[in-house]
Amino acid sequence: MGWQYTPPVEDVLFYLEQCTDLIGEESTNQITHDLARAILTEAGRFAADVLVPINGELDRIGARQENGCVITSPAHKAAFDAFVKDGWIGLNLDPEWGGQGLPSAIYAAALEFWHTGSLAFAMGNLLTVGAVETIARHGSEEIKETYLPRLISGEYSATMALTEPSAGSDLNTIKVKAVPLNDGSYAVSGSKIFISYGDHDLTENIIHLVLARISGAADGSKGLSLFLVPKKIPTDDGLATNHVTCVGIEEKLGLHGSPTCTLQFSDSGMSRGWLIGAPEKGLMAMFTMMNTARMAVATQGVAASEWAYQQSLEFASERKQRHGESPVAATESGIVGHPDVQNMLLSMRALASAGRCIILELAEAIDRTHSTDCDTAQAQAKVDLLTPVAKAFCTDSGIQSGSLGIQVHGGMGVIEHTGISQVWRDARVSTIYEGTNGIQAIDFVCRKLAILSAESVNRAVGEFADISHQLTGSRNALMADAGRLLSDAVTALTRSLTVLADYRVSRRKLASLSIATSALRQFALVAGCAYLGKAALATKSGLAPHHRRYRTDLCFFANAFLSEVTALERVIARGEGILGQLKGDLKLA
Amino acid sequence: MGWQYTPPVEDVLFYLEQCTDLIGEESTNQITHDLARAILTEAGRFAADVLVPINGELDRIGARQENGCVITSPAHKAAFDAFVKDGWIGLNLDPEWGGQGLPSAIYAAALEFWHTGSLAFAMGNLLTVGAVETIARHGSEEIKETYLPRLISGEYSATMALTEPSAGSDLNTIKVKAVPLNDGSYAVSGSKIFISYGDHDLTENIIHLVLARISGAADGSKGLSLFLVPKKIPTDDGLATNHVTCVGIEEKLGLHGSPTCTLQFSDSGMSRGWLIGAPEKGLMAMFTMMNTARMAVATQGVAASEWAYQQSLEFASERKQRHGESPVAATESGIVGHPDVQNMLLSMRALASAGRCIILELAEAIDRTHSTDCDTAQAQAKVDLLTPVAKAFCTDSGIQSGSLGIQVHGGMGVIEHTGISQVWRDARVSTIYEGTNGIQAIDFVCRKLAILSAESVNRAVGEFADISHQLTGSRNALMADAGRLLSDAVTALTRSLTVLADYRVSRRKLASLSIATSALRQFALVAGCAYLGKAALATKSGLAPHHRRYRTDLCFFANAFLSEVTALERVIARGEGILGQLKGDLKLA
Repeated sequence: MGWQYTPPVEDVLFYLEQCTDLIGEESTNQITHDLARAILTEAGRFAADVLVPINGELDRIGARQENGCVITSPAHKAAFDAFVKDGWIGLNLDPEWGGQGLPSAIYAAALEFWHTGSLAFAMGNLLTVGAVETIARHGSEEIKETYLPRLISGEYSATMALTEPSAGSDLNTIKVKAVPLNDGSYAVSGSKIFISYGDHDLTENIIHLVLARISGAADGSKGLSLFLVPKKIPTDDGLATNHVTCVGIEEKLGLHGSPTCTLQFSDSGMSRGWLIGAPEKGLMAMFTMMNTARMAVATQGVAASEWAYQQSLEFASERKQRHGESPVAATESGIVGHPDVQNMLLSMRALASAGRCIILELAEAIDRTHSTDCDTAQAQAKVDLLTPVAKAFCTDSGIQSGSLGIQVHGGMGVIEHTGISQVWRDARVSTIYEGTNGIQAIDFVCRKLAILSAESVNRAVGEFADISHQLTGSRNALMADAGRLLSDAVTALTRSLTVLADYRVSRRKLASLSIATSALRQFALVAGCAYLGKAALATKSGLAPHHRRYRTDLCFFANAFLSEVTALERVIARGEGILGQLKGDLKLA
Repeated sequence: MGWQYTPPVEDVLFYLEQCTDLIGEESTNQITHDLARAILTEAGRFAADVLVPINGELDRIGARQENGCVITSPAHKAAFDAFVKDGWIGLNLDPEWGGQGLPSAIYAAALEFWHTGSLAFAMGNLLTVGAVETIARHGSEEIKETYLPRLISGEYSATMALTEPSAGSDLNTIKVKAVPLNDGSYAVSGSKIFISYGDHDLTENIIHLVLARISGAADGSKGLSLFLVPKKIPTDDGLATNHVTCVGIEEKLGLHGSPTCTLQFSDSGMSRGWLIGAPEKGLMAMFTMMNTARMAVATQGVAASEWAYQQSLEFASERKQRHGESPVAATESGIVGHPDVQNMLLSMRALASAGRCIILELAEAIDRTHSTDCDTAQAQAKVDLLTPVAKAFCTDSGIQSGSLGIQVHGGMGVIEHTGISQVWRDARVSTIYEGTNGIQAIDFVCRKLAILSAESVNRAVGEFADISHQLTGSRNALMADAGRLLSDAVTALTRSLTVLADYRVSRRKLASLSIATSALRQFALVAGCAYLGKAALATKSGLAPHHRRYRTDLCFFANAFLSEVTALERVIARGEGILGQLKGDLKLA
């Protein structure tokens, strides 16, 4: 069943214009309003006109393996060709290699739109973008010249090859080996699993960024190096095989259009790889890739929420139900009139909006880290803080919204051709890959809050407090009310951050680990609401739909979600709770 | 992939023995410990040995339609035959018709076990049980004699045929018609959708309980009557066709083993039906069926939580991960050692336990409504109150647990052959059918709390308060701590119930409807924790696993879930929140 996607172009533009410094002509970091509007409009059009219509086919047919080759569905290949032809791959990439060099925030917004159109399709793109950034930053000049133009042109695509059967979140036990060869390259052997887009027929070549251990290197994650292992090696006579075999693809819950592959590198030294970055510095290079990818995965969560919202609103507006004995007027007769349905619809929408604001803040900070005009350390601190927040909060929200979307559809929700169950299935893995949300929480509590200066954290929280005060002083009663709720939440967050600092100082690691997920969520709820408030403060009453949306979303979010902040405060304050009393076998001591 | 199911027989027995009056030999309502143990052990064995092994096949092959007939998978048919042979269908049904007449609590526990083994398989049973109870209560003697023995023997099975394309939660617009015939039967015409087990090859006949409107009857739901429409009519010469056609089965997100059918009754008067109950009293008869079915669906939620918990614990205990640089001892080396994983595992387990306790309380009260030994009005009030609570809370928990189970499995979680994604998919519809959880919330707030005497509600809350006081006085520090948390939660619940009463008195219907879901959940969280507390108070320290489980579950539940009660109090106190300011189109006024 089709649904009509309206990309939230105006919402994004409004946020970028009113709440960030991105739009303007004063500095090199900025772009004009007209350019931003043109790009976002076209990106949205691609999502609505090209991707939404094929997304069901990508789910039903999906990628499959035939005679050792992975085949995508016909619609998939056609959409990819159009995507390449329109030049979308290089949107935010370095013009030196053929990219368009647009800001990360524009990329993030466009990527959200494409993900809304088709999660399975668009996730391929973020892998190539992540690889380009990693190679551009850590690769040799020769590697860059060989691969970057072809990746950006869409002739090649890329993967991240980290996971092995016994090494998922924990990379210590990675077994893939690299043996130096005479020409400076390495013979890479072993196998990797769960490689998204590890093989397919969309491009003529595929570049794998492979985490491996050089023979003789240290055990554990510190001994890992990053290699570029192409499916085929570019030579003067064209592409030569590199003996990288896809030995199987997974049958998954969702994302059927995205082939998840098991890759086998030659055990007889025939798979050649080239170092990206220094030997045994693979983790650092990998994190370049992962950090951008985490923001990109966060956009999947927002996309899932927005998709679930828009499709459910359409359904709820059309689904007629009589109230009592007499039919009511058609305009009011959808189940959308029910408060419970309204709560569900507004939840999805507010979760999408709040997540989108967090991502735009994060993306804008990413660009400022490369800037010459501003305090890059301050920007980096914001990136460090918001990356796990965006990844975990947005993807958790996406699944929650997918479930709410099914619920709004009632019995139709679990019928596959309705299409709403697909968002729930497709979004499910987003809390797992690119670092599980549990890993994000540990990163936030044990790493980010620990290494960032108190000043950096206080700056972020200070902004939330400022926004709450401005809202509280608003002449709009609903916004003032939301401001009071936000103000209370900021206070609770501040107290919780002190508790977290105490756990660190007193080395109560079990306490920190036990409540990390709660702490990350608490911060995210306050941040999301505050950024919605920032946007709402810039709106004018009675105007365009996106002005109304920010106000409604702020007020709804504050009402529906901020009371959880106080609940989480208590959980955080209780630290390890009963976990301290547990034996490993989950029995009380 | 297989997993080893350990049915929680001891947990159920302990609860029934320590927290209810069910086990004993003093009254006719009671059964002996030995009988209860024998039945539960065998029911659990059927689930673990027969159902768990076939559940994957029911998902992969599922029911399909061939040449107009619905075919189940070979394993499905074999398991059903074994189920019939063991006499499980009549477990709680009237011995007059061939049932075993065992208490509802025993049935509820057994049904939970079977659902854990296979949701798609076991849900067929609850439909037949619901139909038997409805026919026994409202059917004529002739109908009872014709159908009840054959339903209980497993020769026939039954469905509930309520939903139509334009009539889901709202039954007002039901269009299926019934025209009286000369012999007292009716010609039923029209079609029904979403009929679970509406057609299949497991039994020689299928009985549909159909909600329809007699020609000339009132509009709206009050004009509805309930009919028994068999697939085939029993005659002296065997079974004659009744022209009920399955015109299609749905492709669903989950429950593939359970065929969801569109049924067409003859438009030329060839489908005959017989009234169950009085004309235009169909809703009342239907509610007999729905109420039992709601408790039965609640067991699906508990089953999903327990399945997700046990399978995830098995995975997490086996999944090795090195901590830092050195491998730790094998017994502690699963990812189960991570606090975040422990939180997820204990969440699933505590949700299962709390839900199970609510269901056992409800089921025991159901039996007391038929008793001659006790206050049946008091029992009925408890049934009325706990039915929506059990249905909504347990099914919400089931989906939440399924998602947590996937998360514990990491990347393996979204690979279909792992099996954990099946619980999430299979459980999804449980919050929708037998009355969406939104309908349960409205039933709870606008109907149950309104019609029940304040005394009935206070009796329930008073029991929660009593339990919290006993816990607070416990010499076990963890239990005393849980008691204090529960005591605060009971206080918050009490305040919220006063707010709800105020909304009713002041006719603030929008406020009531807006927060109904929150109010139901708040009550359920307190009830679930209190009943866990009741069990924990009966445990002895350092003893059997089920003693430890109740203590751990109580303490974990109080720590992890009770802070939500306070958060919900604020949501409830804010009533319609911004919904009062919304136009139908979800834009702020």
